Amino acid sequence: MSQQISKDTRLCISLAGRPSNIGTRFHNFLYEELGLDFVYKAFTTSDLAAAIAGIRGLGIRGCGVSMPYKEDCIPYLDVLDASAETLRSVNTIVNDDGCLRAYNTDYIAVSTLLDRHGVSRDLSFALRGSGGMAKAVAGALHDGGFRSGIILARNEVTGRQLAETYGYEWRAQLGEIRPGLLINVTPIGMVGGPDAETLAFDPEIIDGAQTVFDVVALPPETPLIRSARERAKPVITGAEVIALQAAEQFALYTGVRPTEDQIRRASEYARG
Amino acid sequence: MSQQISKDTRLCISLAGRPSNIGTRFHNFLYEELGLDFVYKAFTTSDLAAAIAGIRGLGIRGCGVSMPYKEDCIPYLDVLDASAETLRSVNTIVNDDGCLRAYNTDYIAVSTLLDRHGVSRDLSFALRGSGGMAKAVAGALHDGGFRSGIILARNEVTGRQLAETYGYEWRAQLGEIRPGLLINVTPIGMVGGPDAETLAFDPEIIDGAQTVFDVVALPPETPLIRSARERAKPVITGAEVIALQAAEQFALYTGVRPTEDQIRRASEYARG
Repeated sequence: MSQQISKDTRLCISLAGRPSNIGTRFHNFLYEELGLDFVYKAFTTSDLAAAIAGIRGLGIRGCGVSMPYKEDCIPYLDVLDASAETLRSVNTIVNDDGCLRAYNTDYIAVSTLLDRHGVSRDLSFALRGSGGMAKAVAGALHDGGFRSGIILARNEVTGRQLAETYGYEWRAQLGEIRPGLLINVTPIGMVGGPDAETLAFDPEIIDGAQTVFDVVALPPETPLIRSARERAKPVITGAEVIALQAAEQFALYTGVRPTEDQIRRASEYARG
Repeated sequence: MSQQISKDTRLCISLAGRPSNIGTRFHNFLYEELGLDFVYKAFTTSDLAAAIAGIRGLGIRGCGVSMPYKEDCIPYLDVLDASAETLRSVNTIVNDDGCLRAYNTDYIAVSTLLDRHGVSRDLSFALRGSGGMAKAVAGALHDGGFRSGIILARNEVTGRQLAETYGYEWRAQLGEIRPGLLINVTPIGMVGGPDAETLAFDPEIIDGAQTVFDVVALPPETPLIRSARERAKPVITGAEVIALQAAEQFALYTGVRPTEDQIRRASEYARG
């Protein structure tokens, strides 16, 4: 109940150009579930400097950062965690008594999942995409010790730039190459999009892979994930990425790490 | 439920050196009661400029202002309502799409109560006190057309200053003077204070008065109010001031004016 909010209740917020309700519902569900005296609300702003001044001035505990603020917020923050430093992209701000620390929990989640699924660093990879999330994934691959990889992107400028940042190769097409790790970081296969039914990689390329990773979270089973499962390939799903990055963010704000079941139920509630 | 908070929920806050829970409970009670999609929370700050930047940058709808920020906030605001302008003291900020308007709802409440109780402008008055609230009351008296009055204050510096601001007389004692309107704006008679059992004016002065006004709200029946009622003198109570200023503030933030019964129940809940 909002009637239970007191002067001591801690506020966490998000800043996004177009706020959704998902974060607000996700965090408030878990606060209630875990009995934490926190409240969460999404905001947008037309003055990013003033909004971040407000985080400091009001002692707001944490702030999720979405497009288009992920890079623009950096000059107003105090400390960049390695996850944000390596990408120059922030999705999480934690306010420790006025010191604003920046993290990128997408990067943290991808790194953790590559470890948790025991993906061999000896595999070459093909990463399709060159946007903000592709940068987070490529950074996690690089820092995780993946030495050989291809950035597949129709956009040569952003594709080349991303590849060069981490010492990988840019290509528009794979041709005859058969990488061991396939990663989709484009909207291909996303529900409601123009390519909802499209496979992010051709079947023969999936045949040659050892592990398949799709960052698309909706639907949980994208055409790519379905196709990989049919071939008995180990998969990492976008739902795992989303849940883990949210759990990381939640733990950074509150010091409490929700269980996987709690995360799952909060995610269902948040989307419902 | 905090689970019902969405991205569209409007946030109102307060800023105080030492926040209490009363405003938070009062406003959230009424939001729930009236079905308004608002949430309220008290804050303190060590950086007033940044906190007010946050009101602007995050689109926070309203902000109650308490000690010690009532004057210091003025340089950061855009428009002073007459109530705040006349006192150079702000207790309410309303954010209209980035334009921060300042009000003093104590002043508004006192002015309204003097009208509502039909207190004759021909009465001379004695106002005991010289603090921030005494200033609000003296301003309301002056602007309401009370031409003849005495500021009673032990502190000659603040007493004289207040009297001179509005063209009244300062005195340390009333002596033989018998004003028609008596107003207490000191903690005399306040529950839990050192003068809880003290009459703010001597009985023979009360005998000579036509109307008695006590700004002390706790207890609702101070020794002064009790004594005036025993003498069948019309009274204005501190509880009326608090309820009306809170209703004003609430209406400024939400556009909805609660009923007296709603205000009473919210006040009871807030203190409980």
